[in-house]
Amino acid sequence: MDLITVLGLFAAILTTISFLPQMLKIWRSKSAKDVSFLMLITFMSGLFLWLIYGIILGAWPIILANGVTLGFNFIILWLKIRYRKRP
Amino acid sequence: MDLITVLGLFAAILTTISFLPQMLKIWRSKSAKDVSFLMLITFMSGLFLWLIYGIILGAWPIILANGVTLGFNFIILWLKIRYRKRP
Repeated sequence: MDLITVLGLFAAILTTISFLPQMLKIWRSKSAKDVSFLMLITFMSGLFLWLIYGIILGAWPIILANGVTLGFNFIILWLKIRYRKRP
Repeated sequence: MDLITVLGLFAAILTTISFLPQMLKIWRSKSAKDVSFLMLITFMSGLFLWLIYGIILGAWPIILANGVTLGFNFIILWLKIRYRKRP
C-alpha cells in the first residue's frame, strides 16, 4: 500500500470513529438537545448518497467508511429521539 | 458531467452544508454541552488528513468539501469553547 493510500485510510478511520465519542456522550448523559436534528438528517442523506456512489464505483473504502458512519449517526439520531424532552 | 459525478457532488454538498444548522443552533441557544469535544477533535483531525490527501492528489472536490467542512467545525469548536459552562 503506498503512502497516499495509507493517508486516505487514516483520514477515513478518523472521520468514521469520531462519532463514537458523540454516541457514548449522549448515551451517558441521556441528553442530545444541543445536537442539531437538521444536521443529522442532512448529514445522513449525504452519507447515503456517498454509499450509493461507492457501490456504483465498487469502491470498498467509500462503502465501508460511509456505511459505518451512517450506522453511528443512525444510533445518534435514535438516541436523540429517545432522550428528547417532552413538553 | 456524468451522473455518477453529479451524485458525488450532491453527496459532498449535503455532508458539507449539514454542519451549518449545527453551527446556527449553537450560536442561537448559546449551548453546546451535548456536542462531544472528542468528536470535534477527532473529526477535524480526519478532515485535515482528507485535505492533505486532496492537495497531494490535486483533487479539488476533496479539497473544497473537506476544507469548508473543516471551517464549519472550527467555528462549532470555537462556539463550544466560548459557551462552555464554567464551574
